[in-house]
Amino acid sequence: MLINVGIIGATGHTGEVLIELLLNHPNVKICHLYNSGKSSNQAQAISDVFPKFKNRLELACKKPDWLEIKKDCDLVFLALPHTVSMKFAPKLLSLGKKVIDLSADYRIKNASVYEKFYKVIHQDRPNLKKAIYGLPELNREKIKTASLLANPGCYPTCAILSLAPLLALNLVDIDSIIVDAKSGVSGAGKKLENEYLFSEIQGDFRAYKVNVHQHAPEINQELSKISGQGAQVIFVPHLLPIERGILLTIYLKKIPGAKLKLRSLVELYKKFYKGEPFIRIKSEGVFPRIKDVVKTNFCDIGIKDFGKNIIVIGVIDNLLKGASAQAVQNMNIMYKLPEISGLL
Amino acid sequence: MLINVGIIGATGHTGEVLIELLLNHPNVKICHLYNSGKSSNQAQAISDVFPKFKNRLELACKKPDWLEIKKDCDLVFLALPHTVSMKFAPKLLSLGKKVIDLSADYRIKNASVYEKFYKVIHQDRPNLKKAIYGLPELNREKIKTASLLANPGCYPTCAILSLAPLLALNLVDIDSIIVDAKSGVSGAGKKLENEYLFSEIQGDFRAYKVNVHQHAPEINQELSKISGQGAQVIFVPHLLPIERGILLTIYLKKIPGAKLKLRSLVELYKKFYKGEPFIRIKSEGVFPRIKDVVKTNFCDIGIKDFGKNIIVIGVIDNLLKGASAQAVQNMNIMYKLPEISGLL
Amino acid sequence: MLINVGIIGATGHTGEVLIELLLNHPNVKICHLYNSGKSSNQAQAISDVFPKFKNRLELACKKPDWLEIKKDCDLVFLALPHTVSMKFAPKLLSLGKKVIDLSADYRIKNASVYEKFYKVIHQDRPNLKKAIYGLPELNREKIKTASLLANPGCYPTCAILSLAPLLALNLVDIDSIIVDAKSGVSGAGKKLENEYLFSEIQGDFRAYKVNVHQHAPEINQELSKISGQGAQVIFVPHLLPIERGILLTIYLKKIPGAKLKLRSLVELYKKFYKGEPFIRIKSEGVFPRIKDVVKTNFCDIGIKDFGKNIIVIGVIDNLLKGASAQAVQNMNIMYKLPEISGLL
Amino acid sequence: MLINVGIIGATGHTGEVLIELLLNHPNVKICHLYNSGKSSNQAQAISDVFPKFKNRLELACKKPDWLEIKKDCDLVFLALPHTVSMKFAPKLLSLGKKVIDLSADYRIKNASVYEKFYKVIHQDRPNLKKAIYGLPELNREKIKTASLLANPGCYPTCAILSLAPLLALNLVDIDSIIVDAKSGVSGAGKKLENEYLFSEIQGDFRAYKVNVHQHAPEINQELSKISGQGAQVIFVPHLLPIERGILLTIYLKKIPGAKLKLRSLVELYKKFYKGEPFIRIKSEGVFPRIKDVVKTNFCDIGIKDFGKNIIVIGVIDNLLKGASAQAVQNMNIMYKLPEISGLL
Repeated sequence: MLINVGIIGATGHTGEVLIELLLNHPNVKICHLYNSGKSSNQAQAISDVFPKFKNRLELACKKPDWLEIKKDCDLVFLALPHTVSMKFAPKLLSLGKKVIDLSADYRIKNASVYEKFYKVIHQDRPNLKKAIYGLPELNREKIKTASLLANPGCYPTCAILSLAPLLALNLVDIDSIIVDAKSGVSGAGKKLENEYLFSEIQGDFRAYKVNVHQHAPEINQELSKISGQGAQVIFVPHLLPIERGILLTIYLKKIPGAKLKLRSLVELYKKFYKGEPFIRIKSEGVFPRIKDVVKTNFCDIGIKDFGKNIIVIGVIDNLLKGASAQAVQNMNIMYKLPEISGLL
Repeated sequence: MLINVGIIGATGHTGEVLIELLLNHPNVKICHLYNSGKSSNQAQAISDVFPKFKNRLELACKKPDWLEIKKDCDLVFLALPHTVSMKFAPKLLSLGKKVIDLSADYRIKNASVYEKFYKVIHQDRPNLKKAIYGLPELNREKIKTASLLANPGCYPTCAILSLAPLLALNLVDIDSIIVDAKSGVSGAGKKLENEYLFSEIQGDFRAYKVNVHQHAPEINQELSKISGQGAQVIFVPHLLPIERGILLTIYLKKIPGAKLKLRSLVELYKKFYKGEPFIRIKSEGVFPRIKDVVKTNFCDIGIKDFGKNIIVIGVIDNLLKGASAQAVQNMNIMYKLPEISGLL
Repeated sequence: MLINVGIIGATGHTGEVLIELLLNHPNVKICHLYNSGKSSNQAQAISDVFPKFKNRLELACKKPDWLEIKKDCDLVFLALPHTVSMKFAPKLLSLGKKVIDLSADYRIKNASVYEKFYKVIHQDRPNLKKAIYGLPELNREKIKTASLLANPGCYPTCAILSLAPLLALNLVDIDSIIVDAKSGVSGAGKKLENEYLFSEIQGDFRAYKVNVHQHAPEINQELSKISGQGAQVIFVPHLLPIERGILLTIYLKKIPGAKLKLRSLVELYKKFYKGEPFIRIKSEGVFPRIKDVVKTNFCDIGIKDFGKNIIVIGVIDNLLKGASAQAVQNMNIMYKLPEISGLL
Repeated sequence: MLINVGIIGATGHTGEVLIELLLNHPNVKICHLYNSGKSSNQAQAISDVFPKFKNRLELACKKPDWLEIKKDCDLVFLALPHTVSMKFAPKLLSLGKKVIDLSADYRIKNASVYEKFYKVIHQDRPNLKKAIYGLPELNREKIKTASLLANPGCYPTCAILSLAPLLALNLVDIDSIIVDAKSGVSGAGKKLENEYLFSEIQGDFRAYKVNVHQHAPEINQELSKISGQGAQVIFVPHLLPIERGILLTIYLKKIPGAKLKLRSLVELYKKFYKGEPFIRIKSEGVFPRIKDVVKTNFCDIGIKDFGKNIIVIGVIDNLLKGASAQAVQNMNIMYKLPEISGLL
């Protein structure tokens, strides 16, 4: 099988990584690369934007062309900033194309919550309802038939996977979940702002959007689904002086009297994620580090029981399992390909 | 006034920084530099160990020489590894010298707790009782007359200063204090171990000694003193790919019904630390970053009230306020010098 | 076709990267992983050494086992330190195995020069003569039938490729070649030495082995072959505070009167390397940067004509084109596979 | 003595560092801080711009105010971008103020050369002639009576100091000087450009302005003065992924037959710079590294004789000896203070 793929928003971080992955995918042909269509955008050879693609991919990145897409593409990835994707998705769906959206536009089911956190009016409420939240480990069946796939955010991917086994069994106090999150700089996308200059990042470390980050409602939405209770995590992200990778340190309180039927929490996690190709549970007393997963699609998780408290540490590569590689994993599921194709 | 100073352990991180500070101090003469006296140690010009001291300090770093110390020094800094300082302090005290110990050997009053966490027998229990814990902001009066000063650890300095105002008024649940700590690599001293190689640190981030770090009992000891209750913080340190600096993100639960008589927590902190030359409280809604304090003796603190929860973020330079500069601040107090001498 | 591969020295930098590459190679089965056979070496799961291989490669790395190799392997990679490879190669060749050696042991044809620079006696002079120097762009025909392939050093790969077109035509003064080289830390392999600690590398930059580096004779040997004249480059390597990548800035003097029959030096280079899948020549006035080639097998080269002088800048990833990926490229040639298999 | 100082351009890198230095200077009072006076500039507390100055310097940085300057300042530092300083200097001089200009505006005596490299018309030719080039080690006498001091560029400071002893004696071929330069990012000032983003710098290394950098004519001007011959160095700067520091690797050809009357080049350098407080010559065979001089005003130099060739390596901190600390050194000379005041 060969999937003919277009990418809109090919010059950002997730676009760049997506191209890299798809070039190595045995069942994909990258047909077209598009920018976001702003009037100031110029067509550019992608190998001028990213010299590393020279001799590997000789395509221009140009303004989106509906006729071309209609004719040539089976699937379109939207690697666009938040609030821009929803301008493209409806039209693509109406042309019968499958869409994988890497932005946040179709992740939060409650449009008012989206509007509060992203500070724009949601322009495509009809498709918001139909969009499938693409976290394969928890939602695989629905992904198989998705037309519009909302690829999860980087922090939510790591937080939800790290917490799901405990919340599914209601072992921890839903009101006392603290997620202390640390991310590399690429998590912010490519922004030309003072705070992302080398001289501002190198040698520094800081918290940002303390307990007001837009990924919190996404995390809460999915945790609430899993646990059947309204979750309200405390979520504090920090900026690491590295390019890639997320590490979450999660603090939980056990529900007094809650009984675990297994020998240990590690065993619970191993059982919960049995057979998952991209989840690796650390042995008792061992915690993962960012280096273990950088440049991979893995989510590694360590858990330790401290009596009344539990500490969970999860790590992913924010651009891979937290973005582009998870998008490819979702594509593989949507097209009935082996889930690890092009990813291991 | 001129203080004649000796340093034992001059070739480690804290020794190096201490030399730098004392060279700029108007009331200090560095008389002698010593290594830890191991048989394998060779005398070396300090400017060969640290080429940056060439033309600034032409002293050898040699084996400790008691006669010389007796004759020449008023004060001796012990910039030694834990468990080594207690071999030197008793003799120095018996010679009538003042001692500032940068190691952990005299910080923890309960020798059994020390022995459990540092995995050695304490060899100087008599002086342990007399040693003064050198956190100027909370213990200034006692420091003035100290002979043996136990200079606080880096994490404890930042944690205690960040928490003291809330614990002094018992505004938060003492059983739910979570300290998520991040430190630059110099916090570990100069160890030739695989995990401190550039290739292991650069681009990585990881937790270590999860909730079993030896600084936790030091933090608990001091917090218990302040609050009058037994504190047991959850303490998870992480290793940042930077050289210097500590940032602590602290999660607290308010005691229901506890009343603050001031307009805000920020105001509480400002009042608590009024007049302190090295504590800076951030404005409402602003949190400090490591860059703000690197190469300074400041501790910057940000506080935010989230209804049931409080988040406090504190930062220091681990080698300065967390070690050598705090030692100089303590020296200034012990010798009735202006507390900021050589530090601002 | 399936090549059954063994790796001796699987736990070093080049071994790690080689495993990564071979896992993605469509025609390779990794049969066995071995350590260097020192008595202190213990068998270890490779996924314990490198947690990132967990769930991807479940092999132990153990002491070399000749019977096993004889039975199972077609080809053995030696990813060993210099002076160790030559203890393994003769036996492997006598078993009829093909050998690709990533060390320096078979690169320098003059054993006395080798002995001077590597400070050991060469123990396998007979095979030294037979070994093929594996720089595909200049030596492809001989590589096709090689039994023992000497995989080039990282600096030599980049230097020779950057200089070959000019030296082949004798356009520059062979006595005035200056190679100012800068390399990431992984170029030194995994050494537990003070100078490779994070605190020593981060924020620093320094020259080392100024004009006495062991790669200089390797460069001179190959340049002399190309130019037909005895080359003696001035070669000064420096250590960059990054993990991967080499950049060489090369200064040359034109031979007065030497005539270039092409429009420009850029054109000369493009012609010289026409059809080479892994050489990319920059446009007029553009120079490559390390980022362009990191994680790829490319060598990118920029050239500029300054009248009497020429400046050439070449970049490679030292662990890929400078080591493991070039080894795979050589394997592809030796087994008549497409040269880019597993590499693009 | 107390010097009343104003700084115009206080919010850039050199301004920040200058404030830091002057706060520690025993004979300086910082009276006023000014921005560059652009209409878009707002007055700001300097401790809001640089939180690290909180509690140390409570001044606003506002639009330049001539009356205030006239009344309060003895000396004004111009820490402005190139081409902006010359708008301020004439007026300050006419008010009888001493001026130390950290920009390039008064360094290059030939206005046409300046105009070619900085791409603006020089607007103050009269003062250009009077300005004194402030390299203390070579120009101390003239600096003593300077009214307008042109503080040297960072690369020129390091290049000229590294070459002066050889050129003063005409020991090397003036036509074959190659300066391979590497600088930390702060050398470029604070520019909000894509190429200075963390994601562009971290893990990368690249040359820029290859042999066309604006510091080359400044280097050539001073080297020509020293040698009495027209110098034309080949100068290739590169960008290091660090914040501070410059390292120059300089390649020279000896003039055949030129006789050195001393035992070695190291001795020549030591003699040439005898008594200089900020020049340190490395022992035979030892080369300096950036770490040796970061955060200091030193220039460290290593020299090695390779028969026909000489290699010199020089290092400075670009923001200190290469900018602000050299400016303070010049101020000390202009005001007859000890040259090391506030700098050691």
